[in-house]
Amino acid sequence: MTEKCGVVGISLDGRPASRPLYYGLYALQHRGQESAGIVTHDGFQQHSHVSMGLVGDAFTEGDLEDLNGSAGIGHVRYPTAGSVDSSCAQPFSVSFKSGSLGLSHNGNLVNAAEVREELAGIGHAFTSDGDTEVIAHDLARNLLDADLVRAVKRTMDRIHGSYALTISHDDTIMGVRDPQGNRPLCIGELEDGYILASESAAIDTLDGELVRDVRPGELVVLAEDGSGFDSYQLVDLDDTAHCFFEHVYFARPDSVIDDSLVYEVRRNLGRKLWAESGVESDVVMPVPDSGRAFASGYADAASETTPGGADRPEDDDGVEFAEGLMKNRYVGRTFIMPTQDERERAVRLKLNPIKSTVEGKSITLIDDSIVRGTTSNQLVSLLRDSGAAEVHMRIGAPPIVAPCYMGIDMATREELIAADKTVEEIREEIDADSLAYLSTEAVADVLATDRTDLCMGCVTGEYPYDIAGEETDRPVSRPTIEAAMSADD
Amino acid sequence: MTEKCGVVGISLDGRPASRPLYYGLYALQHRGQESAGIVTHDGFQQHSHVSMGLVGDAFTEGDLEDLNGSAGIGHVRYPTAGSVDSSCAQPFSVSFKSGSLGLSHNGNLVNAAEVREELAGIGHAFTSDGDTEVIAHDLARNLLDADLVRAVKRTMDRIHGSYALTISHDDTIMGVRDPQGNRPLCIGELEDGYILASESAAIDTLDGELVRDVRPGELVVLAEDGSGFDSYQLVDLDDTAHCFFEHVYFARPDSVIDDSLVYEVRRNLGRKLWAESGVESDVVMPVPDSGRAFASGYADAASETTPGGADRPEDDDGVEFAEGLMKNRYVGRTFIMPTQDERERAVRLKLNPIKSTVEGKSITLIDDSIVRGTTSNQLVSLLRDSGAAEVHMRIGAPPIVAPCYMGIDMATREELIAADKTVEEIREEIDADSLAYLSTEAVADVLATDRTDLCMGCVTGEYPYDIAGEETDRPVSRPTIEAAMSADD
Amino acid sequence: MTEKCGVVGISLDGRPASRPLYYGLYALQHRGQESAGIVTHDGFQQHSHVSMGLVGDAFTEGDLEDLNGSAGIGHVRYPTAGSVDSSCAQPFSVSFKSGSLGLSHNGNLVNAAEVREELAGIGHAFTSDGDTEVIAHDLARNLLDADLVRAVKRTMDRIHGSYALTISHDDTIMGVRDPQGNRPLCIGELEDGYILASESAAIDTLDGELVRDVRPGELVVLAEDGSGFDSYQLVDLDDTAHCFFEHVYFARPDSVIDDSLVYEVRRNLGRKLWAESGVESDVVMPVPDSGRAFASGYADAASETTPGGADRPEDDDGVEFAEGLMKNRYVGRTFIMPTQDERERAVRLKLNPIKSTVEGKSITLIDDSIVRGTTSNQLVSLLRDSGAAEVHMRIGAPPIVAPCYMGIDMATREELIAADKTVEEIREEIDADSLAYLSTEAVADVLATDRTDLCMGCVTGEYPYDIAGEETDRPVSRPTIEAAMSADD
Amino acid sequence: MTEKCGVVGISLDGRPASRPLYYGLYALQHRGQESAGIVTHDGFQQHSHVSMGLVGDAFTEGDLEDLNGSAGIGHVRYPTAGSVDSSCAQPFSVSFKSGSLGLSHNGNLVNAAEVREELAGIGHAFTSDGDTEVIAHDLARNLLDADLVRAVKRTMDRIHGSYALTISHDDTIMGVRDPQGNRPLCIGELEDGYILASESAAIDTLDGELVRDVRPGELVVLAEDGSGFDSYQLVDLDDTAHCFFEHVYFARPDSVIDDSLVYEVRRNLGRKLWAESGVESDVVMPVPDSGRAFASGYADAASETTPGGADRPEDDDGVEFAEGLMKNRYVGRTFIMPTQDERERAVRLKLNPIKSTVEGKSITLIDDSIVRGTTSNQLVSLLRDSGAAEVHMRIGAPPIVAPCYMGIDMATREELIAADKTVEEIREEIDADSLAYLSTEAVADVLATDRTDLCMGCVTGEYPYDIAGEETDRPVSRPTIEAAMSADD
Repeated sequence: MTEKCGVVGISLDGRPASRPLYYGLYALQHRGQESAGIVTHDGFQQHSHVSMGLVGDAFTEGDLEDLNGSAGIGHVRYPTAGSVDSSCAQPFSVSFKSGSLGLSHNGNLVNAAEVREELAGIGHAFTSDGDTEVIAHDLARNLLDADLVRAVKRTMDRIHGSYALTISHDDTIMGVRDPQGNRPLCIGELEDGYILASESAAIDTLDGELVRDVRPGELVVLAEDGSGFDSYQLVDLDDTAHCFFEHVYFARPDSVIDDSLVYEVRRNLGRKLWAESGVESDVVMPVPDSGRAFASGYADAASETTPGGADRPEDDDGVEFAEGLMKNRYVGRTFIMPTQDERERAVRLKLNPIKSTVEGKSITLIDDSIVRGTTSNQLVSLLRDSGAAEVHMRIGAPPIVAPCYMGIDMATREELIAADKTVEEIREEIDADSLAYLSTEAVADVLATDRTDLCMGCVTGEYPYDIAGEETDRPVSRPTIEAAMSADD
Repeated sequence: MTEKCGVVGISLDGRPASRPLYYGLYALQHRGQESAGIVTHDGFQQHSHVSMGLVGDAFTEGDLEDLNGSAGIGHVRYPTAGSVDSSCAQPFSVSFKSGSLGLSHNGNLVNAAEVREELAGIGHAFTSDGDTEVIAHDLARNLLDADLVRAVKRTMDRIHGSYALTISHDDTIMGVRDPQGNRPLCIGELEDGYILASESAAIDTLDGELVRDVRPGELVVLAEDGSGFDSYQLVDLDDTAHCFFEHVYFARPDSVIDDSLVYEVRRNLGRKLWAESGVESDVVMPVPDSGRAFASGYADAASETTPGGADRPEDDDGVEFAEGLMKNRYVGRTFIMPTQDERERAVRLKLNPIKSTVEGKSITLIDDSIVRGTTSNQLVSLLRDSGAAEVHMRIGAPPIVAPCYMGIDMATREELIAADKTVEEIREEIDADSLAYLSTEAVADVLATDRTDLCMGCVTGEYPYDIAGEETDRPVSRPTIEAAMSADD
Repeated sequence: MTEKCGVVGISLDGRPASRPLYYGLYALQHRGQESAGIVTHDGFQQHSHVSMGLVGDAFTEGDLEDLNGSAGIGHVRYPTAGSVDSSCAQPFSVSFKSGSLGLSHNGNLVNAAEVREELAGIGHAFTSDGDTEVIAHDLARNLLDADLVRAVKRTMDRIHGSYALTISHDDTIMGVRDPQGNRPLCIGELEDGYILASESAAIDTLDGELVRDVRPGELVVLAEDGSGFDSYQLVDLDDTAHCFFEHVYFARPDSVIDDSLVYEVRRNLGRKLWAESGVESDVVMPVPDSGRAFASGYADAASETTPGGADRPEDDDGVEFAEGLMKNRYVGRTFIMPTQDERERAVRLKLNPIKSTVEGKSITLIDDSIVRGTTSNQLVSLLRDSGAAEVHMRIGAPPIVAPCYMGIDMATREELIAADKTVEEIREEIDADSLAYLSTEAVADVLATDRTDLCMGCVTGEYPYDIAGEETDRPVSRPTIEAAMSADD
Repeated sequence: MTEKCGVVGISLDGRPASRPLYYGLYALQHRGQESAGIVTHDGFQQHSHVSMGLVGDAFTEGDLEDLNGSAGIGHVRYPTAGSVDSSCAQPFSVSFKSGSLGLSHNGNLVNAAEVREELAGIGHAFTSDGDTEVIAHDLARNLLDADLVRAVKRTMDRIHGSYALTISHDDTIMGVRDPQGNRPLCIGELEDGYILASESAAIDTLDGELVRDVRPGELVVLAEDGSGFDSYQLVDLDDTAHCFFEHVYFARPDSVIDDSLVYEVRRNLGRKLWAESGVESDVVMPVPDSGRAFASGYADAASETTPGGADRPEDDDGVEFAEGLMKNRYVGRTFIMPTQDERERAVRLKLNPIKSTVEGKSITLIDDSIVRGTTSNQLVSLLRDSGAAEVHMRIGAPPIVAPCYMGIDMATREELIAADKTVEEIREEIDADSLAYLSTEAVADVLATDRTDLCMGCVTGEYPYDIAGEETDRPVSRPTIEAAMSADD
């Protein structure tokens, strides 16, 4: 598994790529804090620096200077329980017959074990357990007797699952997005070159212009002189399976993904939430920072219509939007956890209610999602302790009922509060006065796509991929390897 | 100088104080990131752990376990240019004839050199350059022939300047605030003891109740069994000199300082700002996170009245409040700075404009203050690059024209953009379409105090203390040492 | 290149192998200080911990506990100029079709590039530049369609050069020595298992008994229950090519290599040195610690015979053996190098002459070898500065005239003082009163082997392997791969 | 307590002193590995860098560059059980009325508590528990109304115990040795200045010439321009109390202390040992490295006379000297200790017997001292396990029966094997065939001094100082403070 990660690839006209790659990774830091790495190419030589920790800790000035060459790729890796293991840090780099190969991968293959076994059967030896090494070996093998584009196509036909890849083959930088476009990847134009990145915020950081998303099934090859890029549509499926959760939770609000600005999507999901399950209260309060955009849209809508959908009378200001939970801005860094009996207070280390905003008020608390339910319960209890008269909870996404197999490490099914509880049971458990989630229809509606073009496995339990033991939500239209190759010939 | 720092002191009924002190410091982390330290007392033994870095990095579980005793004090220190020096980290601890002494200091003495010289003249040797060691030596000397309360009084009469101190004398914990109350300090009640802290947020974090602020010139002595505290009003002046800038910038929004909730103060300063210099525009946008509360109050007021002060017509919604600058949440951590020619882009690493909110719009950008002007200039230019039609800048405090001598390390006079420029000249330099600051009167008004009870030296150039080469804004009413002592006899 | 390194492999009856491996590596620390690593096997799982630095720094208690399983291998790596690169640290571990493979390698292949190219040609991808990965891939490939012993034989037939390997294949531990036995490897019996190690000192450290050396061309497979080992003589050549320099310089004096105790070999080389080129002087003084055993043998012989070979008269005690250069026992650890103009004094940081032993005396200084000549020159000058009347230098090995290609990183040809200088020219350069080296015949004589059974490439310039651009000292009798395989069928 | 430590002080003509101080400390590293520090003076400014760990780890190039000034002092501190505490690291530096003071101390005061209490009584506050801070405060106080020389005299009259001090008072460097000369301190001349150091090896390392030892009770003041030094004999007692154990164990063999070369002293102690208790055996073997010089003298004497003292017959070579225990040269660095049941083998990690030298032989094992007896027992057992026929143990010093109060942290009385056991009982416990120690008379004889001029408290239980609960071995002739001052006027 390569989890929620961030990938980037850059090709420039002569200028060293290491610093732009570094700042690009810095902009994608929210997608992975476990490790960071950069691989660059400099004529015939590959330079690699991969280190555990945050981008800022992983590289020194000297490291960046040693990463010669005007082309390269980068990666930030998301921490996953128990796997703090430097051997899985990326980019993964190998050298083989016809040159060097570097890979950065965001996503998760569903047939990695099968492909690995097949490659092992013809003699491949693996130094890690990762999907990425499997892709690298398959691609290296295909490059033995095929040109670059056909080799990539063969590998795409062989591997199933979600993947956004940036690849360096000597000093050629490429980007590939899986045929269903599950993980995001976009193209940007810089002053003197081009960039591929998981999110457009990385392009903005480098003062570049977003060109467009990489299309599902597309291979983008950056020109080595930074002058442009070529596109190869290698696989073409009827449906896509964009991850809706990127929009709800994972991506930066200032990123544009698949043509939608994440911030606006979140505000619109908040507006829908009011429309579907608005409740009158004294205050609309976001859980910072995750609920802020949702709450702002919800409060906006609430100032225009009543819960019933009628226009508000002119002398009714509707609910007030207010920040009532203040965040310790050092949260997220190392600190010693409270002991068991201090544990229930732990939430106070992160969030502190503002009494004047809370005391005696009926409050609507807005968040993006509920995973285990523990935090929601603590927040409701925190507000009640600070004198809240009522606490209504509204969530900007449907209940999460099943795990993600596509690369977002949310939780196991047992840990998900909604996996085996009704909304009413959850409301009881988190002790809210009322609780409502957004509908799946509303999500599809806001994202302005067909429900069948989204991956909503985690909220429906039906997946757009064949996963052993799970249901699929569509007839898989994947062409076989043979079919694909002949199509290409 | 001991700069803007955070102090805490705790006395409990038997339970070890080290963990509550740790979480208290964690809540005050915004007041100082250079070093963190705790001193505890355990019967006859003093335990000390002081380390460079953030609270979370400065202590291990084992460190906390070694800090025995149910009474102690803590300190977080603010980084100041060029002084990354472990010898100044606090608490400062010494042992002397009648026991052990630990001191945590927030503030800045104006006569430290003089007191130091006097003590050196009678044989004292100093291991650091800090004010805190001077106070410790003076107090230790006074304790040779006076009881605790009288010794503290003598020291208070001897030292001039701003100070909020937590002191441990063996296992007695005390708090002192200078006679003009420049730096904040408050008292809180915990389940099984009492706490003194720079800000009430530290009390909240420990699920305690704010009792009240320590009064200017007051000594508070916590009972060793955690059952209460005694108060000694040791010096009583007519005027106070509360630092208004704590409210504007430095304190956490969820803290209550001198009876005012900081968040509400900032919202009200924002409302005043609209009243004094409101301008109609499409969007009101905060600089995150510093301008958020100001912008929210400003937008609220703008939805009620027109810039002229008239009620808004019912069909006029006024200006829209929107977050248009998205913050990289990893900003503030280590990273390699861009090279000189990338420098102007550096602001993009921290803040990214949301195009849909900015493009073609007239924007009012709200911040709490302008120090050097560099960031404001970059933000205006960033918004213009993203297509803003107009950028109006509104600042929730008066222009900073002079340095702070009382413990907030803002900048030297040369660096302050307002020190020798008119508002119009500043507007030109930051390239805004219009610029307005709040008046000093508005600040006093919102803080509901007399102008003469505030220290506004940094915005008036006149200080409530005698500072060589600077003007004072009041006849100093300080009793001389002799007078004070006889008054006490 | 895998340079002078140390390897170990252990198979025990149930007890975890990690601690014995750790102590074994500790005993071999002199063979490599750059990195240390252990790979263990535990049923189906391979555990690996490889880290830069000394053994004591590379592992924590927790690391050893995590290295489960009663079978494993270890490696210490020698630092080589410019290659401080964690990607070459060993053991190298891979998983492939039929299981897991771990390799520790001491030696240097002469056809690594060729084998690598061949493997790349059939699709292998490499993550490092090392020989070891090449061996691992070749062995993994052979294991696809051959049993363990035949797979190892095929690999031995394919790779040319020097190698002592410990290999883990799942929980089977093996040791292999190249057909010419260039690098040492021996077998030891422990209380509850067996051990393979570069030197017998590692066996002693674990209170084991040396069984015998692994024979050139032999594969030794340890029983998984620690009960014994099997031997397979896979390649059988007429001549061996044992490295004589292991005895002179590299191995621990307390190790037994190819049936000779290193300490005794060195003493006997010292005796020969007296016989060949003894010179009467007041004091025989070793360069500590490298020259001590040589000097002790030299002085012993000198007390029995005169330089001419005659028995000493009974009233003539011969020369006195004395330690006259005292070593700073912290030498070898980190310290800041003297500046250029302090450089000539640098030797004083390491060695300090004892004046009473040196002043006015004629001294014979004994060392094991001269590489660049810089140290010898400094030592002679140091003794002269301390008042030595004469300084005669005697070296316990022949002049080093050519580089080592077999895994000992001595120096490039340009750096070797003897590469283009006569003994007289060297004497002049190091400013000694006289200088003599031992003959190659004496070395062969002391090691009690045929000259043709030793690798003396570095002192003859003729190698027992085909090295591009260098002469060989023998008709290579290596069977071709085809021949070998049919022989085996 | 400041234990066995190393001190140095240097004054140069313009050249920065930091690097020479650094190399001086490096040469004294054996005297202390816990911490290292340097204080320099540069006109009016004092620079200090003190860090835990070895000299090589404690300083970077940048640290040395920041230590400006051509005068300074340095210190290495010995680790003592339980006190790994950075607050005691030295040099200790303070600033006070008339300037800055830095102190490096080797030794131990017997009245530190008393002086501390007295100073505390007049207002002094202490930041550590160390003797050194007490001396610094006393000296600073005396400097308030006395010139440098008289102030030092007053302090010497006030403090009792052992001390060798290097002191910086602004850019004046001084050295002081206690009136009984317990700890060593010597003066050296450098090319462009003068040096004070605990041992002459530090002078050699800097290519300097040993001038002489600092005399007991003498103050040496280095000229600030490096041109010479002044001497002030401030206290003059009849007897000295030089520590004999410096010669036996602690000092480097290449140092000259109180006019004796330590290496020669050890060899002569070895010769005496043969004379007093020689035993015929096949091999004389040193415990490396501590027993080497003793064993060499013992074997020398044994080749001349029989145990009875008669000349050896000409055909009798006497006993053979041989190194039979080989040391792992990485011993002393970090490594994970064996578990309890591996513990008895632990000695093998450090020392490995050479079988050919040991097997079937009767061996005389020579060491400098026996403290707890554990190591001796392990060594005897190690030799027996390797086949030794007999093991006779000979020790180059008398039995240690009492603790050291003068600064050498040997062990508590309970831990000393000789504290309550006869020699025969010790022999039984370490399982040797015979055991003999050297007599106290022999020690005094070899050191060519009166027994009354040595401190032999640890082997007699009678001390040259008044120590509570211990006997003294002489009438103390210390002049009172009053007497001393009038004598000086």
